[in-house]
Amino acid sequence: MLTKNQIKLIHSLRQKKYRTFHHMFVAEGVKVVHEFLNSNYELVEIFSNDLSYSNCSSNFTEVSSKELSKISTFSEPNKVLAIFKTPLAVSVNWSGLVLALDNINDPGNLGTIIRLCDWFGINDLVCSKNTVDCYNSKVVQSGMGSHARVNINYLDIQMALEHSETCFGTFMEGISIYDQNLPEKGVIVLGNEANGISKEIEALINTRLSIPRFGSLKQTESLNVANAAAIILSEFKRTATEK
Amino acid sequence: MLTKNQIKLIHSLRQKKYRTFHHMFVAEGVKVVHEFLNSNYELVEIFSNDLSYSNCSSNFTEVSSKELSKISTFSEPNKVLAIFKTPLAVSVNWSGLVLALDNINDPGNLGTIIRLCDWFGINDLVCSKNTVDCYNSKVVQSGMGSHARVNINYLDIQMALEHSETCFGTFMEGISIYDQNLPEKGVIVLGNEANGISKEIEALINTRLSIPRFGSLKQTESLNVANAAAIILSEFKRTATEK
Repeated sequence: MLTKNQIKLIHSLRQKKYRTFHHMFVAEGVKVVHEFLNSNYELVEIFSNDLSYSNCSSNFTEVSSKELSKISTFSEPNKVLAIFKTPLAVSVNWSGLVLALDNINDPGNLGTIIRLCDWFGINDLVCSKNTVDCYNSKVVQSGMGSHARVNINYLDIQMALEHSETCFGTFMEGISIYDQNLPEKGVIVLGNEANGISKEIEALINTRLSIPRFGSLKQTESLNVANAAAIILSEFKRTATEK
Repeated sequence: MLTKNQIKLIHSLRQKKYRTFHHMFVAEGVKVVHEFLNSNYELVEIFSNDLSYSNCSSNFTEVSSKELSKISTFSEPNKVLAIFKTPLAVSVNWSGLVLALDNINDPGNLGTIIRLCDWFGINDLVCSKNTVDCYNSKVVQSGMGSHARVNINYLDIQMALEHSETCFGTFMEGISIYDQNLPEKGVIVLGNEANGISKEIEALINTRLSIPRFGSLKQTESLNVANAAAIILSEFKRTATEK
């Protein structure tokens, strides 16, 4: 049985200011909650219509399907909803391969980029302060639990990149990523969905890369930023395995 | 000034059955409408609060911002909405590189895959009949006008693939795409977001590929299907340029 305070807390966590205030976020659905339960994330409370989840924590609340609908953001709630503590990010390891995001707005894009970092073994994801919050419910959802294996820092990326020797960005007129000798360390910057990399950050980029465009018409203006991330990370990792 | 019949028609086109019945679909926003206007797509009617669109067609209707909100699916309508005729797809050129989708459900995924086909010069996209309709408003939106440069056919893909000699699919235990000699022609199959490639289609695949997974934990279950498409198409095109 849900209390009014529990409902109020869960609803409040849909807003970034309350997530920041409480240092908590919500994860939903069997798959995503499972991933966070099997990670270092600290569980605060768990709510489900499936009693087996009572083994996870003493802070288990059995809820009816109707109650679950009340607290869920899904049109069809999937069994379980849990509140976790937002972890403190550890410092960025700048001597590895780091992905930096300059003002990514779309939660789905950020979520799939976190999933890509996890897949390609990128431990450090750095986000500009105006990038969408990684604990936004849609980011958590599309991240599919990969948050648990990627260290995500929100930083003044301009200041951070000033100390980086090798900084890559993608531009329409850059050198083809297929022809470039890609290193095993450095920072790869991805820009905003509509406006690309901002002028201040562009000034800090040493190597301008491009993803070659094929076809006879070549009228496609751009790739979706998460798809661009997929291709770039794949190329960095592929060439590293060839060395 | 909008008529009731115009509003009724536009609203009806949000449903596949009416799009099929009328052979029409809706495109919205400056960028996407611009792409369709500059293609072979036949314009039926155009609605805008910007009078310069009256040059595009005699079927121009000036609408107020309030009226545009009434017909738009956007939370913040972007100047223009247009109805176009759905074109008749031309036959698939099976002697080229063809992408085949087996039951893709998410409109955003289909839209970005169409954009990827456009970027990588894949002329033919084949969709199973249970794949989401490519003229669904969200697909049109995330396709960003790339529909105009990709030939999209909805077919019984099982029957279609039976005639194909070289058929690729991605699986967790396949051969690394980085190690494989990828040809310039053949069919690449991508499966459903949750269930992958169906059993019937899997039986028709000659070459099982995989996208290598990095990182020490290797717990990421899967990549988003559009991201997988991005990496696979990039690899096919990259290796073709090296020959």
